[in-house]
Amino acid sequence: MIMILETIGQLLIKVREENPLVHNITNVVVTNFTANGLLALGASPVMAYAKQEVADMAKIAGALVLNIGTLNEHEIEAMLIAGKSANQHGVPVLFDPVGAGATSYRTETSQRLAQELDLAFIRGNAAEIANVIGERWEIKGVDAKEAGGDVEDLARAAAKKLRTIVAITGKVDVISDGETTYSIHNGHPILTKVTGTGCLLTSVMGAFAAIANDKLIAGAAALVCYGVAAQLAAEKAAGVGPGSFQIEFLNALHNVTADDVRRFGYIEKKE
Amino acid sequence: MIMILETIGQLLIKVREENPLVHNITNVVVTNFTANGLLALGASPVMAYAKQEVADMAKIAGALVLNIGTLNEHEIEAMLIAGKSANQHGVPVLFDPVGAGATSYRTETSQRLAQELDLAFIRGNAAEIANVIGERWEIKGVDAKEAGGDVEDLARAAAKKLRTIVAITGKVDVISDGETTYSIHNGHPILTKVTGTGCLLTSVMGAFAAIANDKLIAGAAALVCYGVAAQLAAEKAAGVGPGSFQIEFLNALHNVTADDVRRFGYIEKKE
Amino acid sequence: MIMILETIGQLLIKVREENPLVHNITNVVVTNFTANGLLALGASPVMAYAKQEVADMAKIAGALVLNIGTLNEHEIEAMLIAGKSANQHGVPVLFDPVGAGATSYRTETSQRLAQELDLAFIRGNAAEIANVIGERWEIKGVDAKEAGGDVEDLARAAAKKLRTIVAITGKVDVISDGETTYSIHNGHPILTKVTGTGCLLTSVMGAFAAIANDKLIAGAAALVCYGVAAQLAAEKAAGVGPGSFQIEFLNALHNVTADDVRRFGYIEKKE
Repeated sequence: MIMILETIGQLLIKVREENPLVHNITNVVVTNFTANGLLALGASPVMAYAKQEVADMAKIAGALVLNIGTLNEHEIEAMLIAGKSANQHGVPVLFDPVGAGATSYRTETSQRLAQELDLAFIRGNAAEIANVIGERWEIKGVDAKEAGGDVEDLARAAAKKLRTIVAITGKVDVISDGETTYSIHNGHPILTKVTGTGCLLTSVMGAFAAIANDKLIAGAAALVCYGVAAQLAAEKAAGVGPGSFQIEFLNALHNVTADDVRRFGYIEKKE
Repeated sequence: MIMILETIGQLLIKVREENPLVHNITNVVVTNFTANGLLALGASPVMAYAKQEVADMAKIAGALVLNIGTLNEHEIEAMLIAGKSANQHGVPVLFDPVGAGATSYRTETSQRLAQELDLAFIRGNAAEIANVIGERWEIKGVDAKEAGGDVEDLARAAAKKLRTIVAITGKVDVISDGETTYSIHNGHPILTKVTGTGCLLTSVMGAFAAIANDKLIAGAAALVCYGVAAQLAAEKAAGVGPGSFQIEFLNALHNVTADDVRRFGYIEKKE
Repeated sequence: MIMILETIGQLLIKVREENPLVHNITNVVVTNFTANGLLALGASPVMAYAKQEVADMAKIAGALVLNIGTLNEHEIEAMLIAGKSANQHGVPVLFDPVGAGATSYRTETSQRLAQELDLAFIRGNAAEIANVIGERWEIKGVDAKEAGGDVEDLARAAAKKLRTIVAITGKVDVISDGETTYSIHNGHPILTKVTGTGCLLTSVMGAFAAIANDKLIAGAAALVCYGVAAQLAAEKAAGVGPGSFQIEFLNALHNVTADDVRRFGYIEKKE
């Protein structure tokens, strides 16, 4: 896996060189953290929500990220308009089905977005992804219980059913296009103590998707770089607390290098 | 008061063990801080605002927190739907009347929510609470001037009139169910230099209300644990500034122990 | 320029003494940071967005700040109501045309607000200001490319055309009322790595506008104090990253003194 870590390091450098514009329609809890995380990494965030402008903004973006963490009917309408504009202009669309399964409104909206838009990626925890494809996993609020079930199988099945790349994050992260699957063993448990670390990850995948032709590798690269940054940050904030981790993580997204990826990245190809 | 500090320490441990889901319908200024504060403490936050889903989310929550800091007509509608669902399912509803008295829209909305819902708690500063029960205290924006007036009497009167537990926070915090009243002498002035520390406190009261039968003690426990955490954080950020205090406070909410409560908690029973 | 730095230092002290209420109708990305920045400086922030209450809130404020970073039709309506109320009651209105030029919705809304309201200040990057007066500069998302063009000339021309004070921020900050122009050489490049540093600056200008009769000097004072605080923070966070800078910047807004202004402020009068 040395070759792929080399490629991932190069993509990280390319994100910083090309500074891609990532258009986010995301939830109110994580907007600030998402913008700061993308800036720290070296991408250029924009948030735009009004139906009057989302088509214009999405088409000039390098990627469009849709996140239903605090969805409402106006935002869903805007997501569909933005998503269709992105689809028309070849801009990759990423979808984060926050809380799918927690309420039927979230589950149905997720399924509708997955159906009406041509998605490049879906990223969620196992319960969310399962609910998008109509399987039931236990979910509590917006945080999944990582109960039984094979996450790799789920990613593969969801990718095939939804004809997109599916990333399932948890203790181990898995990403699959239905044919090829990678598992990534980076990251740190303290990520679960800071809100929006999943949401920001989807936006970071957007930044990588914007600058890479091979979308599966782009997604895997985002997972590895993000996980390695989390490890570096967790080391600095060890024993201090989640407040300090949040700040160190923004620092680490800014400071993580291709060399760190080479040294600490841990990715396996599964088939 | 050694006995009650013992109980409060046990409740803190129970919050972390049970990890209650707290559904917040709150203002856009404090969503991120509220979510991170609840996560740091050991609770599980969820934000959901759409009328299509709030009833579903509220009924599976351990507590519902309503905060009118940036209210609008759609949010008020959602609060009423969520509140009624919570009432039906025995989920405690907490209300934070941010800025009641600053505009008549806030005052009237506060009175309407207090009337139409069966509230378990109201928490605010003295001016806000006074305005909810139709008395006038000076208010400037959303920050009260702690002018004259006996805060304990106000808490008692408001609790009787609104038939709920009332917490009034300020230099000294007071909580009363109309019969029994506690005053809590923890906390730190620098809390007023970080936005949302009042709002987060109401959500923390929600986390305690979710796991305790005696709601008055639950509320007092939240006030003590929160105040002690603030003192620990203020010590770490002494002389540095409110930016660092904010981070240290999130750390402290994560790190504060039953033993800290025993050592630094300062609560008095008033009648 | 020693005299003017003396005046600026006095204004900083006055902000902290008078603690002006700044009513913000701003974007969802920066609400928390804006509130914390104003609190840290010594002002009193309030966010209120509902058409039912913005007139009431604006009229009791020391300044009203309008920011279209995540505009929608309801917010625009509220901005017009609040702005007219502020105009009637002599409350200075500041406008931040975030992303003007990025979409026609933003450009047209900016022009409409500038036309229908009596603005005391507009603050933006060069591309935004150019787009408000109908000139084209390149813009990418909400971040301007500081391409050619003379920024001082642009500020002067925009001030004359819009009959307001115009502040253009970038590597060098410029503020002009069309007759007198100042350039300020404070600040630090890492400000561009934290979201909302421009938005917060407009709100800080609001705090100074609230307490000073000479609005041009008030605006210049805000730019100098903000820039000096950024330099102090950048020194503390040197080599660490944008997460730490964000926190140190909040600390510095709290800690920056009239003496720091005297020592590190760098302002030139241009005509």
